[in-house]
Amino acid sequence: MNIIVTGATGFIGQNLIRSLKQMHSVHAIIRPTTDQTKVGTDNIFVFNDNIEVLSQYIIDNRIEGVIHLASLYISEHKSGQIKDLILSNVYFSTALLEACAKANVKWFINTGTIWQNYNAAPGVKEYSPVNLYAATKQSFIDIAKFYTETTDIKFCTLKLCDTYGPGDTRRKIFNLFKQIAETGETLDMSPGDQKLDLLYIDDVVSGFTHLAEMLHNAEQLEDEYVLTSGEHHTLKEFADIFSEVTGMILNINWGRRQYRKREVMIPWQGAKLIGWKRKISLENGIRSLM
Amino acid sequence: MNIIVTGATGFIGQNLIRSLKQMHSVHAIIRPTTDQTKVGTDNIFVFNDNIEVLSQYIIDNRIEGVIHLASLYISEHKSGQIKDLILSNVYFSTALLEACAKANVKWFINTGTIWQNYNAAPGVKEYSPVNLYAATKQSFIDIAKFYTETTDIKFCTLKLCDTYGPGDTRRKIFNLFKQIAETGETLDMSPGDQKLDLLYIDDVVSGFTHLAEMLHNAEQLEDEYVLTSGEHHTLKEFADIFSEVTGMILNINWGRRQYRKREVMIPWQGAKLIGWKRKISLENGIRSLM
Repeated sequence: MNIIVTGATGFIGQNLIRSLKQMHSVHAIIRPTTDQTKVGTDNIFVFNDNIEVLSQYIIDNRIEGVIHLASLYISEHKSGQIKDLILSNVYFSTALLEACAKANVKWFINTGTIWQNYNAAPGVKEYSPVNLYAATKQSFIDIAKFYTETTDIKFCTLKLCDTYGPGDTRRKIFNLFKQIAETGETLDMSPGDQKLDLLYIDDVVSGFTHLAEMLHNAEQLEDEYVLTSGEHHTLKEFADIFSEVTGMILNINWGRRQYRKREVMIPWQGAKLIGWKRKISLENGIRSLM
Repeated sequence: MNIIVTGATGFIGQNLIRSLKQMHSVHAIIRPTTDQTKVGTDNIFVFNDNIEVLSQYIIDNRIEGVIHLASLYISEHKSGQIKDLILSNVYFSTALLEACAKANVKWFINTGTIWQNYNAAPGVKEYSPVNLYAATKQSFIDIAKFYTETTDIKFCTLKLCDTYGPGDTRRKIFNLFKQIAETGETLDMSPGDQKLDLLYIDDVVSGFTHLAEMLHNAEQLEDEYVLTSGEHHTLKEFADIFSEVTGMILNINWGRRQYRKREVMIPWQGAKLIGWKRKISLENGIRSLM
């Protein structure tokens, strides 16, 4: 297949491109500001706001599908960041989908987050955003409905839980644990009773490739799936598991910090991606990290 | 009350400001490109992308509520118009709501369209956009949910049907009828069996002021209402009524043009604005036009 990946220089994007390249021809759509040396494919299109030109590139390269990972993530936004949030997560996504629709691309995988369903009960697709970032994700999905109702493009959103793995430079929980384990420093944290759903990068990648194959084979699909480890632990329990697996001591002052305003205490559970299973256990994932 | 109106230079905005000024202090938020001589109030704030400054203006002027009319309307978009559509209808709306939330504004009336519910059955709030414009309207409502879930602001969307009245320069149906009646020219139209819901401008204005009072009085409200004439006629019937009322002959070639791709054949009916009734009959509305 000829596939476009956006967000090519991000943690998931880099891993996904490495995997896809073994079987497929992979193209990256990047912005003018993206460092091209970090893009794992030579097929690069720099998007300069000209949707017609992008559409022609898609036609010329016979692109069959898109995996749209690019996203500006901001946990708690400041007013001055709103324009960038909307330009990245709503406008760029819409521009890409418009170009794909014009070029008769067969399928489009959009990346969502379980944070779009903060107050929702398990299995209930009620929209309730944790933060403005999650709201912009929902916002694009509603714009996408215009394209799914007026063209033949197959559009599916894969909602992610938290992800981790080697090479991840984001300030995520295992990176913090690793850092304090290695330096011996003490970390102030919240009470730690919030549950997390953490998925290893190889399983994230296989989730995307699995969904791409389903779309390619024109299987009957829901409009969204959740990629979940199927395993919820509290932050405190994750610290214990990390210590057990690595044999390293974590100095954490539990309860020294407050929960965030809209701390997710129980990750939302939605329709699981059918036919896919994670392969890397939490323990093996942690070992690969170290 | 101290009220902000956006879209001040539009057809509805000009009429709404004229009416509101009789009872309230009215402020207009405009963009740098707006012609200030067309704004019907001297209280003007020019929004230059600085949300903090806008928020301070709102605080300094003790703004209690906002009627957000500003919108970029595009019936069938071209790719090159997508950025403007999203900046106007999603970004500016979000920036305004963020500024209001920071300034503890009590209520915010958002303007929607029944075109957000193209395929929906009467009374069923299923989202289905007629065009990308309608999709951007839904997109902002998604973003607004973040603010309604995290602040005390009362947010309500008033969905409009078609509107008309004296001074309307938009290329709408009665303006076309008036033009061909006066010039005697012949107009090619679609078969004309699509039903329309047309509301006179004074009734549109009274709908907004009625909803503003309800929000001010903290009444229990739905999150959206539809402002409807309660009267559906086909385009052909509207031509007949226009001829009868004005005594003018309309030369129309029915069926010479095709319906638009997603022509709305029956306007969507949702929850009617409670406690409000239109005052101007179709016949009187047409007389006022001439």
